[in-house]
Amino acid sequence: MLSISIIGTGNVAQHLFDELMSYPKSIKVDQVIGRNLKSLSYFKDKVETSSDYNNISHSDICIIAINDDAISSVSQQLKINNCLIVHTSGSKAMTLLDKHKRIGVFYPLQTFSKNRKVSFKTIPICIESAQEADLFVLQKLGKIISNKVVTITSKERKSLHLAAVFVNNFTNHVNHIAHEVCLENKVSYKLLHPLLLETIHKLEELSPLDAQTGPAKRDDQRTIEAQKNMLTKASHKKIYHTLSQSIKETYGEEL
Amino acid sequence: MLSISIIGTGNVAQHLFDELMSYPKSIKVDQVIGRNLKSLSYFKDKVETSSDYNNISHSDICIIAINDDAISSVSQQLKINNCLIVHTSGSKAMTLLDKHKRIGVFYPLQTFSKNRKVSFKTIPICIESAQEADLFVLQKLGKIISNKVVTITSKERKSLHLAAVFVNNFTNHVNHIAHEVCLENKVSYKLLHPLLLETIHKLEELSPLDAQTGPAKRDDQRTIEAQKNMLTKASHKKIYHTLSQSIKETYGEEL
Repeated sequence: MLSISIIGTGNVAQHLFDELMSYPKSIKVDQVIGRNLKSLSYFKDKVETSSDYNNISHSDICIIAINDDAISSVSQQLKINNCLIVHTSGSKAMTLLDKHKRIGVFYPLQTFSKNRKVSFKTIPICIESAQEADLFVLQKLGKIISNKVVTITSKERKSLHLAAVFVNNFTNHVNHIAHEVCLENKVSYKLLHPLLLETIHKLEELSPLDAQTGPAKRDDQRTIEAQKNMLTKASHKKIYHTLSQSIKETYGEEL
Repeated sequence: MLSISIIGTGNVAQHLFDELMSYPKSIKVDQVIGRNLKSLSYFKDKVETSSDYNNISHSDICIIAINDDAISSVSQQLKINNCLIVHTSGSKAMTLLDKHKRIGVFYPLQTFSKNRKVSFKTIPICIESAQEADLFVLQKLGKIISNKVVTITSKERKSLHLAAVFVNNFTNHVNHIAHEVCLENKVSYKLLHPLLLETIHKLEELSPLDAQTGPAKRDDQRTIEAQKNMLTKASHKKIYHTLSQSIKETYGEEL
């Protein structure tokens, strides 16, 4: 049985909490600590809660699941010994927790939204620890909730997080522009959903380099110019131009 | 029973042919015509083939599924009367076929790759015709293979095609950059696939405007600068910058 305390009450904390609570035979969540009383109320009927970091339980693992910028100062305030303290950030180094001896990272590589259940089994859990023995503890926890636990360094995790910005944030934004084009021209964005799904499913078999199609790949300047002219916002034109240039360069290099 | 001739031997022609052939009770494919003998060989054991446009059969519908730039000249060469002639292009106007009386468009809104089977049932078929009676013919054909047949104008189709470039081509390219970041830093791009899937599935419930997250949305300048500095290629830095700026503007406007 692993005992866990969670610091934080946001999306990651909530999703992680719900997941951990669903394995009562192997995991005991001792406590959730958070300063935001409104979001702390989500937990209060289910587990012991507190808004004071000094009240922290002595669990096997203390998971800090809060905003990146607050990790360091919260870590400084924690007065616990012999507890493995980890954060859940994709971009922050493990050494932020350096005040303590037993430290690590437990990073679920996924986007979490309020009210959207995700299956943890498929989420890669990226772990790291200062002491080797603690890696086994994190592995044990990771394997209870996910089929994919990988040990990576802070530097590697940072690269993954950068790649994740392209995969999630930028994919979403180019779809936002598609949505705007549809609204403006009174066609249904929903018609594009099967295309989006196939675009993604293709990447299970092909690399994005091999999967690329379209006017920029073909260097079809006439279509590129015509499409740029159809866009009404300057920022959308610029994105169309910048991405098309980069696609042309990518495949130009190959010739 | 609808009889069909197909002009063209590329990806769209092949996928459409295979699909039409799977409904032998309602559709009869009379013939496939193509100039490229090598790709014409794909069809030759299954149906009558020819490389001469003058040999075209008198089917109910003649589907021109070839490169956008060739549609007009091929249409000019066709000598058939009283056959409904359609093209399958997303970006070209129906009027390219103006030499003939009964004309239209039969545009399956999907990306087709060699050796990848897609289910036509979910593909929106966008149809258009010069004469109203022909719309029923295209509707009849569309409904045999797909659950989603929509009538749209050439102008609307052009907008959809522009949006499709964002949804497919640009989504793929930002994922290509993520892939490159992973290769360069020796982390596995496959770890990001569950994130990509969730990014897309979220858009079934939320608009891309509501689904946006990340450093640019939060206007987290420190992370933005740090991540830009991690990118080694100038074109990737430029894309990171341009997309982040646009995201910041999108949400800045809201405040």
